[in-house]
Amino acid sequence: MKDLDEFKKFRQKMNEKIFFYGNKQINRFFSLDSQSYREGALTEKVKELLGLATSTVLRCEDCITYHIIRAVQVGCSDEEIIETLEIALIVGGSIVIPELRRAVSTLEELRERQKKGINIDELV
Amino acid sequence: MKDLDEFKKFRQKMNEKIFFYGNKQINRFFSLDSQSYREGALTEKVKELLGLATSTVLRCEDCITYHIIRAVQVGCSDEEIIETLEIALIVGGSIVIPELRRAVSTLEELRERQKKGINIDELV
Amino acid sequence: MKDLDEFKKFRQKMNEKIFFYGNKQINRFFSLDSQSYREGALTEKVKELLGLATSTVLRCEDCITYHIIRAVQVGCSDEEIIETLEIALIVGGSIVIPELRRAVSTLEELRERQKKGINIDELV
Amino acid sequence: MKDLDEFKKFRQKMNEKIFFYGNKQINRFFSLDSQSYREGALTEKVKELLGLATSTVLRCEDCITYHIIRAVQVGCSDEEIIETLEIALIVGGSIVIPELRRAVSTLEELRERQKKGINIDELV
Amino acid sequence: MKDLDEFKKFRQKMNEKIFFYGNKQINRFFSLDSQSYREGALTEKVKELLGLATSTVLRCEDCITYHIIRAVQVGCSDEEIIETLEIALIVGGSIVIPELRRAVSTLEELRERQKKGINIDELV
Amino acid sequence: MKDLDEFKKFRQKMNEKIFFYGNKQINRFFSLDSQSYREGALTEKVKELLGLATSTVLRCEDCITYHIIRAVQVGCSDEEIIETLEIALIVGGSIVIPELRRAVSTLEELRERQKKGINIDELV
Repeated sequence: MKDLDEFKKFRQKMNEKIFFYGNKQINRFFSLDSQSYREGALTEKVKELLGLATSTVLRCEDCITYHIIRAVQVGCSDEEIIETLEIALIVGGSIVIPELRRAVSTLEELRERQKKGINIDELV
Repeated sequence: MKDLDEFKKFRQKMNEKIFFYGNKQINRFFSLDSQSYREGALTEKVKELLGLATSTVLRCEDCITYHIIRAVQVGCSDEEIIETLEIALIVGGSIVIPELRRAVSTLEELRERQKKGINIDELV
Repeated sequence: MKDLDEFKKFRQKMNEKIFFYGNKQINRFFSLDSQSYREGALTEKVKELLGLATSTVLRCEDCITYHIIRAVQVGCSDEEIIETLEIALIVGGSIVIPELRRAVSTLEELRERQKKGINIDELV
Repeated sequence: MKDLDEFKKFRQKMNEKIFFYGNKQINRFFSLDSQSYREGALTEKVKELLGLATSTVLRCEDCITYHIIRAVQVGCSDEEIIETLEIALIVGGSIVIPELRRAVSTLEELRERQKKGINIDELV
Repeated sequence: MKDLDEFKKFRQKMNEKIFFYGNKQINRFFSLDSQSYREGALTEKVKELLGLATSTVLRCEDCITYHIIRAVQVGCSDEEIIETLEIALIVGGSIVIPELRRAVSTLEELRERQKKGINIDELV
Repeated sequence: MKDLDEFKKFRQKMNEKIFFYGNKQINRFFSLDSQSYREGALTEKVKELLGLATSTVLRCEDCITYHIIRAVQVGCSDEEIIETLEIALIVGGSIVIPELRRAVSTLEELRERQKKGINIDELV
């Protein structure tokens, strides 16, 4: 499985490098992207599940890892996450299955860290 | 705009024809598909929004029309639907915009029907 | 339903116009495309079903119409076509359903033409 | 062929309606989208061709129509547009062909309007 | 190249974990998925080639590996597999090439195992 | 980060193996693919940027790596490459971000090699 600490390190390093190219539109898009998941008419939890479902049908592995982490951080239960993946599976078909396996593997690693009392708040 | 009554008629007619070919796996998939949106750990409203968001990023026009109708039927507000489309837009990019236009056009037609007291419960 | 004669007319007219731009690579690609479906280790029937299945999961409506016509022309049965669409449905998920409806609608129109003794050999 | 005046009318009407929902992120995305095609290290012409090529491989019909219009407005030649579509065809494969036909059909309508002295500056 | 024994181990482990979450729709989908490839109007060989072609145009690496293994297990020849990949390449374009390389690499490893008398029946 | 020398080695080895299967259509497609990027109405630089943008929105990692290398080889500046990625990001949305990170990482490795006087002409 993808190491979550490696994932974090590469994301942070590259986000900084991209930022320093100083391309205004790219930087605005990054800021727009994080604003979209803030509580509004929909709760943060629902928004993260929307991010997870869309990332899953589009089979963007890093995006799925990111939204699983975020979903766990904002307090989604296993059942809520699995039902979200279920809808993604029905909508997107069997090609979603490899992502489903990796998503569940990430979910399990996060739950293990929580059981051991390891802080997961800084992972993304 | 796509006429919602035409949409309903073609869907029903073709669903019946597909059913009568008697392909077991296809028929099971159709039944599985409708079961997936029933209330579970997630409410029907959230599930319809997940269906809407995934259909939007995959740019499946009929699927979007279907889930907008369902979202309105189960009581989602305009704000909830628009925030769902917002996340689909950020996740899927500017190629989602044409679907966003058609989705909003469908939403407006549904709201007009509701204002005029036209029953929309049988549309899907 | 898309009118099959309109479909034929627009395809032919635009294929000719594209040809007359004289772009070598585009013209070579068109020729390569038709060569790929000629009998080899696989029969023409299997190749058309491969064309149909891939077009269906990629949800390319005109491509599906084209390969349904070709599959019927080279003698595929309804059962063979429906099983091909079944695999496309399982692989591609519920977003394939709208294409499935249109594909079955095209298939039925072709079978009706055959029953009435209308020649379908020139449709593509 | 899609009527270009209908295309313009529907786009404008729906863009306004979307704007009036007042969703900040959607409105910012629309503004970001238009900023991205302004001259920078790359000319406006190259940027429109990038918009056209990406829209073509993603098979977004309205996006293709939009970028063909824009490419013609900023002065791209037929050869430049056709070579852009050629690369999109090689990258995206035969499923791009239906979009290629429609793109060429749009291009021809624009050239006819220009020949007749009809102003195309307000189409998008 | 992806190690085929690692591939098998991760698939089995995660399939079991997913099963034990007890989500009915997910479990039914998995069962539906395997039923779809059983002999019907089409032979098992043709069905596996349909699975391979659709996985290839959708560029699902694990799905391609799975269907190459299955195609070899049910007795498809190299020529049949390569012609299937050829159609996927023409349909899906040059973005399919990286998957083509990995597919051929998997095919070669399977043929080597067969030559050495290593049993490949348990790989999936 | 993906090792560029490993990337080169695997590409070359597999391209040769694919070539020796002797499938005419596949071999013609490979030749067509390289012809498409030769100078015509558009310069080689613009063509490589079109290849990069389309690969990025389709999220084909190896294709992105290939076109970043080619873009640097034919003399594109960082600004031109970043603006190309910017358009791909706006067109394709946040699911493009993981590819953006890897693309920038590849770009940086190429620039470092150039600074150290390491020849990058043979990488693809």
